[in-house]
Amino acid sequence: MARMKNRRPSKTASDTPARRPSRGRQNERKGQGSDVWIYGLHAVAAALMNPARLPKRLLVTQEAGDAIADQIDDTPHAIQAQLADRRDIDAVLPMGSVHQGAALLTQPLADLDISDIPEAPTDGAPAPKRQVIIALDQVTDPHNVGAVLRSAAAFGAVAVILPDRHSPEETGTVAKSACGGLELVPTIRVTNFARTLEALKSKGFWCVGLDGSASDNLSDLDLPDKLVLVMGAEGSGLRRLSHEHCDYMAKLPIRPAMESLNVSNALAISLYELLA
Amino acid sequence: MARMKNRRPSKTASDTPARRPSRGRQNERKGQGSDVWIYGLHAVAAALMNPARLPKRLLVTQEAGDAIADQIDDTPHAIQAQLADRRDIDAVLPMGSVHQGAALLTQPLADLDISDIPEAPTDGAPAPKRQVIIALDQVTDPHNVGAVLRSAAAFGAVAVILPDRHSPEETGTVAKSACGGLELVPTIRVTNFARTLEALKSKGFWCVGLDGSASDNLSDLDLPDKLVLVMGAEGSGLRRLSHEHCDYMAKLPIRPAMESLNVSNALAISLYELLA
Repeated sequence: MARMKNRRPSKTASDTPARRPSRGRQNERKGQGSDVWIYGLHAVAAALMNPARLPKRLLVTQEAGDAIADQIDDTPHAIQAQLADRRDIDAVLPMGSVHQGAALLTQPLADLDISDIPEAPTDGAPAPKRQVIIALDQVTDPHNVGAVLRSAAAFGAVAVILPDRHSPEETGTVAKSACGGLELVPTIRVTNFARTLEALKSKGFWCVGLDGSASDNLSDLDLPDKLVLVMGAEGSGLRRLSHEHCDYMAKLPIRPAMESLNVSNALAISLYELLA
Repeated sequence: MARMKNRRPSKTASDTPARRPSRGRQNERKGQGSDVWIYGLHAVAAALMNPARLPKRLLVTQEAGDAIADQIDDTPHAIQAQLADRRDIDAVLPMGSVHQGAALLTQPLADLDISDIPEAPTDGAPAPKRQVIIALDQVTDPHNVGAVLRSAAAFGAVAVILPDRHSPEETGTVAKSACGGLELVPTIRVTNFARTLEALKSKGFWCVGLDGSASDNLSDLDLPDKLVLVMGAEGSGLRRLSHEHCDYMAKLPIRPAMESLNVSNALAISLYELLA
């Protein structure tokens, strides 16, 4: 049974957020930050196909260039692949980056805000049964944030919200772990996490906090169609403040010997439960 | 609907494997490898509580020592914690290890074989509805193997099987990512992966391969109670050989824009589907 913690937000005219014409336009509108190297076959291929992504330089080995030849041909951007050997690519990336022979220098994606959240994934497939936003409360590990983006794209979440502080920047590590998901799911950085949850509630979303101490399993709750799934940091879990802004609290049915799941695994299971 | 690929193995007397008296005994029986440093609060706490784990040296900061005081008091091993500062601990670990103020030098766990697989998890909680073994075909990333062990313990899988080659060794990274799961779920390294699948089939297990190209969703299959869940490597997926040894092939219902999930996320969802 659902436990209601906060009162139901009233429906307002803002329930239907204004849609921006394209992410490309936003990118022109709000330039930002210094260029980043994106690497790995899937990550580079997806970045090339993202109209909102301004590429600067593309390095590929012969083999990698063959593997992503379609994307190099079809990219909406005028960019020429430079043939390189593995060591040339090693030299421009952080030590130990598993680049699979492909690296793309690009501007970071434009800043988005919650009015940019689409009603359904923009990947061309049918809309899933719910509109789910993921809100990550201080998840610091870029591999975890990347894995969350990958699962978010795989199950059709419409956005990932991160607090501006205590979250990894958009880096090659996030893009690589996201395996293309960074280009598909709008990632929104916010300065005030709790206020953002309230703003989403005023747009008709309900907040579900995932916490091992909750009394209900996620699958036992009768949940509405517009949801914000709030996940805590590795280790410390959901902050009290986020907890208080959640309409529902839910856990996953794990055995008592383990305290918790890895945050990206917990998120993947939750998306499977809510969207698949 | 299930597609049967191989014929049903006949039931034999070996269906009920002989149980070894304790993992502690095995450890005496088969000493192995050089000592490893295990680090991170959960990993060290779980290692201290594992009777099969021979600890050599325990370094803790004051704060970490307080956090795992119960385990330091209750460990079945005679080991004295040495008070250390963070830099002392940094000095014994690979650069950048997030040790949270705790590091334990120990022998690797003893080699196990498939006759050591228990009928149910040994964590004291009720047995789950199925006996599930995880077989990881050349998953090379120690973070992924660790995350798999964590989810395996969380949902009550009875063993994780890894090919001896092309799998990470038991390292601090695996133990840290496993968050205690390495101590709870028997990890079995085998020289011949395909032959091991056949041996498990002769013990009454059925092999389910997870592959994005399968026609059935995992949740649509009517599966038996003794299962080996076979997962492929990141990137290349299930090898042909493993594929041929599977009785069933299954996929997870992801959107066409993404080719696959992270291996630990796919595994977590599958365990949730099969065991929760």
